[in-house]
Amino acid sequence: MPRLTVDNINPHVRAAKYAVRGELAVKSEQFRAALNKGEGGDLPFDQVISANIGNPQQLDQKPITFFRQVTSLLENPQLLEKEDVLINHLGYKTDVIERAKWLLKSVGSVGAYSASAGVPAIKESVAKFLEERDGFPANPANIYLSAGASSGVNTLLHTICAAPNTGILIPIPQYPLYTATLSVLDATCVPYYLDEAKNWGTDLNTIRSAYEKAKADGIDVRCIVIINPGNPTGASLPEEDIRAVLEFASQENLVVMADEVYQTNVFVGKFHSFKQVLRKLQQENPGKHDGVELASLHSISKGMVGECGHRGGYFELVGFDPEVEANIYKFVSIMLCAPVIGQCLVEVMVRPPKAGEPSYELYQQEYTGIFEGLRQRATALHKAFSEMEGVECGEPQGSMYLFPTITLSAKAGEAAAAEGRTPDEFYCMRLLEATGICVVPGSGFGQKEGSLHFRTTFLAPGTEWTGRIVKFHKEFMEQYR
Amino acid sequence: MPRLTVDNINPHVRAAKYAVRGELAVKSEQFRAALNKGEGGDLPFDQVISANIGNPQQLDQKPITFFRQVTSLLENPQLLEKEDVLINHLGYKTDVIERAKWLLKSVGSVGAYSASAGVPAIKESVAKFLEERDGFPANPANIYLSAGASSGVNTLLHTICAAPNTGILIPIPQYPLYTATLSVLDATCVPYYLDEAKNWGTDLNTIRSAYEKAKADGIDVRCIVIINPGNPTGASLPEEDIRAVLEFASQENLVVMADEVYQTNVFVGKFHSFKQVLRKLQQENPGKHDGVELASLHSISKGMVGECGHRGGYFELVGFDPEVEANIYKFVSIMLCAPVIGQCLVEVMVRPPKAGEPSYELYQQEYTGIFEGLRQRATALHKAFSEMEGVECGEPQGSMYLFPTITLSAKAGEAAAAEGRTPDEFYCMRLLEATGICVVPGSGFGQKEGSLHFRTTFLAPGTEWTGRIVKFHKEFMEQYR
Repeated sequence: MPRLTVDNINPHVRAAKYAVRGELAVKSEQFRAALNKGEGGDLPFDQVISANIGNPQQLDQKPITFFRQVTSLLENPQLLEKEDVLINHLGYKTDVIERAKWLLKSVGSVGAYSASAGVPAIKESVAKFLEERDGFPANPANIYLSAGASSGVNTLLHTICAAPNTGILIPIPQYPLYTATLSVLDATCVPYYLDEAKNWGTDLNTIRSAYEKAKADGIDVRCIVIINPGNPTGASLPEEDIRAVLEFASQENLVVMADEVYQTNVFVGKFHSFKQVLRKLQQENPGKHDGVELASLHSISKGMVGECGHRGGYFELVGFDPEVEANIYKFVSIMLCAPVIGQCLVEVMVRPPKAGEPSYELYQQEYTGIFEGLRQRATALHKAFSEMEGVECGEPQGSMYLFPTITLSAKAGEAAAAEGRTPDEFYCMRLLEATGICVVPGSGFGQKEGSLHFRTTFLAPGTEWTGRIVKFHKEFMEQYR
Repeated sequence: MPRLTVDNINPHVRAAKYAVRGELAVKSEQFRAALNKGEGGDLPFDQVISANIGNPQQLDQKPITFFRQVTSLLENPQLLEKEDVLINHLGYKTDVIERAKWLLKSVGSVGAYSASAGVPAIKESVAKFLEERDGFPANPANIYLSAGASSGVNTLLHTICAAPNTGILIPIPQYPLYTATLSVLDATCVPYYLDEAKNWGTDLNTIRSAYEKAKADGIDVRCIVIINPGNPTGASLPEEDIRAVLEFASQENLVVMADEVYQTNVFVGKFHSFKQVLRKLQQENPGKHDGVELASLHSISKGMVGECGHRGGYFELVGFDPEVEANIYKFVSIMLCAPVIGQCLVEVMVRPPKAGEPSYELYQQEYTGIFEGLRQRATALHKAFSEMEGVECGEPQGSMYLFPTITLSAKAGEAAAAEGRTPDEFYCMRLLEATGICVVPGSGFGQKEGSLHFRTTFLAPGTEWTGRIVKFHKEFMEQYR
């Protein structure tokens, strides 16, 4: 017998679920590998579409030129000794060269560990960005650069969760990083359902009753997580929803964790940051909401940046006790620092070329092109869903996802049960096998009892693949009618 | 009252200690910031020397040209459209261009998430490297690319530790990542002392008695950690020590975790990998040691690569149960993937230019230059220590550190106690304040009761700073005689 078996390893790791990269994703990678080796002879498709994960550069999206010109110089500073070649032969603009020099001066080498919470000069750029975005001050000392937002969430939940009865209010459906991390930490997820009928908005009565019920059950509820714009729902919260959540958190003394990684992926309405709304509330009601503790997270992986592979992000803490921050600092220092080139991409994300600067025009053109491309694909996919029997999907609002409801027959449910799967898992598995398109079943994010969904990104180019979904769906519905 | 206070946050995070980036490191960064702003008027030094952390590129070490030329092309693939400019104006060799193209083909974009356990083609390169290094097969499916070795250790300990009575044998002194992670996981560190008299080698009797005592105390000892070459000790283990540890692990059914990040930093003797020695043992004794579970870790941060800031590394699993590996896969997938540019640096580390290839000569020259520079600095520092009263230090063997014993007077001990510090912390704080040199007290790594040490890297250039240590030490000894 091996020393470690599935029965004696960490039971909390074993209990964690992370469907975004689960069985379906693994199977899709096997299909892809077979196709690449020319061994996909039996498969009824010639290409795998990974619509399971928001990974823009795996699909059509090109990196933004300014960003990557800068990082190429950071990787090889010797290139800066040949400015004329860069400018005259390679099309690098002077602002690219200036930014790279400034970053190198601030960072030293991108091959050196930075300070644990990130390069001080980059934290200053983030603070300036937050000040301009929100119209309120931000302090670099409260900003922590992280390896993507995921690492920030991991740090924060590790610090907040003290015992199995620590409760964290989590929206359902949610990005499963939250429930997976709470499983690993053996803490309690206190689910509150988002309101599909109101375009997946937050409903304060629902939140309050989830909170009260948990409290009555002896749960020490400490924190509420909001994902805005939503993942997997794409919902973009109106300011009044954010106010309501902050007032509730203030009243009940809850830490607010605002996952705002899709803050630029908004098609309907306008993004409102929790920090700005909190500061407004504090201004309007002097003394009343001073104690609110807010952690807000951002990332280079989403938006029009899409630099997932570089693992960059940050979180800002507002109102946290300095001794608690000292423990957060210690926790991040154990893993040394976030990837430094990812930190540099955070810097260029929060301080892109401005109007009048040499790289501005191209930057603006690329940024707008990506934004419009995402919107068009979202609209096309939404239209396809609207034509599918038993599929309902609200208008695309933001993020990179649609999360349609699917209504399947009892016969499909029985066929799923016979395979030991939930009906949505069964549906998504059949979709993958028939079309090569990988999506994630709604059960991977949580959904109301009796409802079924799947999450798909709208990143893949073209419309041919949406046609494949429509065709599959029709055949599936016929087969299990 | 804030919702989170130091008294109610995760007590295991609070209990974790990580002195490498603790109070002294924070103070040294404050000194550095003051000096940079021209506000260091009162300080008796004009430069801070960070000898507390193995961070070569923060100090003198230049990155290896081949590596960074490749990564510059990965960051900006548009440069590959101008091969003539790269070759004729920028000095890029054809093998740089070929490698970048091959990596881009394997990776797609470095801005895309890779597969959770790493880019398949890079794992194949790692497997080939291991086969050549060890003379035994390696399977890419058992290789996991990680964000530095630290992230690999975190993954493995998370999986192995199941309860507070899970025990992990940890060498003392150790790199505090291990004890800090065990604190966070609320598992039990079972310390075994290294033998300073035998140049910090492993002593099997010591290991066995630590193990037996823990077992008698009801600890479920599951795993033994070995750091070879040692951190903080620099010890490079002879093959017979490794054999003895493996035979013991085999007999007692313990998982072996071999931290081999300093495998190329060896000045005395030769590096023996745990994997190779295990395979030899298994060959010599058919059937006897088949069940041994070994995890071995490597990193791009150390060696002559020194790319700490890029957060790259890998671990290989041998003999692990597939269901356990499935849980390890799931755990790493929650954090999505290791930084992709760091993964690419793993690839060039394990497959550097070969003799006859265009970049070989420069690579070889840079590699040897770094190696010899480290050896010379180690020797110079060792010589300085040998001249200091009450300081004893074994010959430098490997890694990037020296870990001398210091003998301080009772008077120094009393002065330390008056400040609430241990004598080694007191000594290191005075050293920092007097010279700007930051080292880490031995208590940060663990040391035998009544003994005192500090750890210093030998990365800082020049000999002026070693002179500053000698002078400080003399004055300190006089003051507290």
